Amino acid sequence: MSLKQIGEFGFIRRIQADCLVRPEGVVKAIGDDAAVFRPEPDRLGLVTADLLVERVHFLRDRISGEELGHKSLAVNLSDIAAMGGTAREAIVSLAIPEDCPLAYLDGFYEGMKKLAGKYRVNILGGDTTGSKADLTINVTVIGSVPEAQLLLRSGARIGDIVCATGQLGDSRAGLQLLIDGVDTGEEPWSMLRRAHVRPQPHLDEGRMLAAAGGVTAAIDVSDGLSSDIGHIAEESGVGVRLLAEKIPVSDALKTFCTRFDRGDPAVWALTGGEDYCLLCTISPDAADKVCTAFAEAFGRPLHRIGEVVAPGIFEVVGRDGRAIPLEKTGWNHFTQSD
Amino acid sequence: MSLKQIGEFGFIRRIQADCLVRPEGVVKAIGDDAAVFRPEPDRLGLVTADLLVERVHFLRDRISGEELGHKSLAVNLSDIAAMGGTAREAIVSLAIPEDCPLAYLDGFYEGMKKLAGKYRVNILGGDTTGSKADLTINVTVIGSVPEAQLLLRSGARIGDIVCATGQLGDSRAGLQLLIDGVDTGEEPWSMLRRAHVRPQPHLDEGRMLAAAGGVTAAIDVSDGLSSDIGHIAEESGVGVRLLAEKIPVSDALKTFCTRFDRGDPAVWALTGGEDYCLLCTISPDAADKVCTAFAEAFGRPLHRIGEVVAPGIFEVVGRDGRAIPLEKTGWNHFTQSD
Repeated sequence: MSLKQIGEFGFIRRIQADCLVRPEGVVKAIGDDAAVFRPEPDRLGLVTADLLVERVHFLRDRISGEELGHKSLAVNLSDIAAMGGTAREAIVSLAIPEDCPLAYLDGFYEGMKKLAGKYRVNILGGDTTGSKADLTINVTVIGSVPEAQLLLRSGARIGDIVCATGQLGDSRAGLQLLIDGVDTGEEPWSMLRRAHVRPQPHLDEGRMLAAAGGVTAAIDVSDGLSSDIGHIAEESGVGVRLLAEKIPVSDALKTFCTRFDRGDPAVWALTGGEDYCLLCTISPDAADKVCTAFAEAFGRPLHRIGEVVAPGIFEVVGRDGRAIPLEKTGWNHFTQSD
Repeated sequence: MSLKQIGEFGFIRRIQADCLVRPEGVVKAIGDDAAVFRPEPDRLGLVTADLLVERVHFLRDRISGEELGHKSLAVNLSDIAAMGGTAREAIVSLAIPEDCPLAYLDGFYEGMKKLAGKYRVNILGGDTTGSKADLTINVTVIGSVPEAQLLLRSGARIGDIVCATGQLGDSRAGLQLLIDGVDTGEEPWSMLRRAHVRPQPHLDEGRMLAAAGGVTAAIDVSDGLSSDIGHIAEESGVGVRLLAEKIPVSDALKTFCTRFDRGDPAVWALTGGEDYCLLCTISPDAADKVCTAFAEAFGRPLHRIGEVVAPGIFEVVGRDGRAIPLEKTGWNHFTQSD
């Protein structure tokens, strides 16, 4: 059975099951001109969107439908996480080329629904249509956050501690393995591949940090550590000094760099991108408390990777004590190519 | 200057001006991980999305950037209109191929911002990325509606009057002129082309109908009158009988059908699609009052085109009194081609 045979409305009926995982607050889900929901009282609304385009963001023969569905939602949940928010509703638009098998799309929705269910996010609507060339996905996520806990990029102050909620660089190394056609069936390569195709949004981590008090700014790592911490610096009007030896990198990334002669893992961590963990800045008097609470909550450390300094300074200090200027440029989909 | 030269962040800075036309209620617009807004108290939230794909929904050499920007937002505002709602925030995602000139994109945002300004809709965020082939646009619109005024597809009852807020079939005729390469520089062809590339969302009409009382169901005409009134019939569990002679068609469409030997204008009106006016059903005791109020508010009639009947009946009665079964199939982007 093909998409052409079942048609747009047949496809919508097919995917509709299990889209509504949190019916309370939903007045009308898929099936009318617009979805209708009841905003939560006394909370701010959040909204974010990400577009994933075949041959720009993914190669269909290197990522399963299930992984692509997971990732398409995960990158949006990560944005909500970076605001300290809770994700509520997802709106999913798909432009589907004729050669895309129905099984791939079934997998796509399976992966997306599994992640949506985990975080109690409804798939509340969207649009499905044909495409003459590339499979293209847009996901919009609506979330909410108590006003006092909203995390922006603009709140960092000189003296704050810069922290990361996870390891960096694995996703970019995983992408490299996919590009190079390396068999990723075994560890440690499968772990790197997984970091790229099945990123875990740090929603629980973002909520914990937002509620902890003392966290002054946050962002998720999509373009790369260097670029994304640059956004905090720019929006906050401050500088940043990172410590190379403190940047958390996995053993898998170290093995990758050694085995394939790929240089310093810290460079992959700084410029890689698509890690989808969070970076945050914490006021110095709250840092110990927040780090301890984080470790207790998640059983792993909140990594202190640097400090907020005076504007004009934007550097990483190497193991030899030498400061190297950081580049604010991260991944740019218009100027770089796979 | 090209998109490649200015990059993603340069492009975002370029389009950012005048995106915020209703700053009250917005906590953070473009520039953070997610946009932040303050939901209106005592209203339901509405959300809808539409994907427009080059070579499926439009041909880039037949529609200007300004028209495409207008239309991409208009089709979403039309969905909000069909719920009786007010549009509030738009989230705009663009996948841009390398050969798309910056001037085309500037026009796109100009057209979109002009329409957004008219209805006080903020462009609050989105995503911009590259594309290897087609220009692809996803717009998500968030709106709101007082709960008592929400219009669904599912409220029609036997005996209700079926009405349309505008003329039907012009848009499809305009598309045909574009496909056939007819010079649309002069009337009446330019009027038909305009109906296709610059549809006017019936937001004011939708609000008026929602507030009037007695309107039991509504939908906007995107797939075509026959298909869309079919959705109301299906969701409401009723039948529909339309009267062909009551279906409002323009003189331009009549001229088009005569000049190009294109048959009965009523067929274009029934199966055309993309009209983006509204269909609604009104309880019989309220119909006179609502129609009078509509005509007074907008200076044109609310067209009575049929009635809601028992389930199982789904037909149009021709000028000769013969009933012809209606087809529920409208435009299907998977099975039909331009």
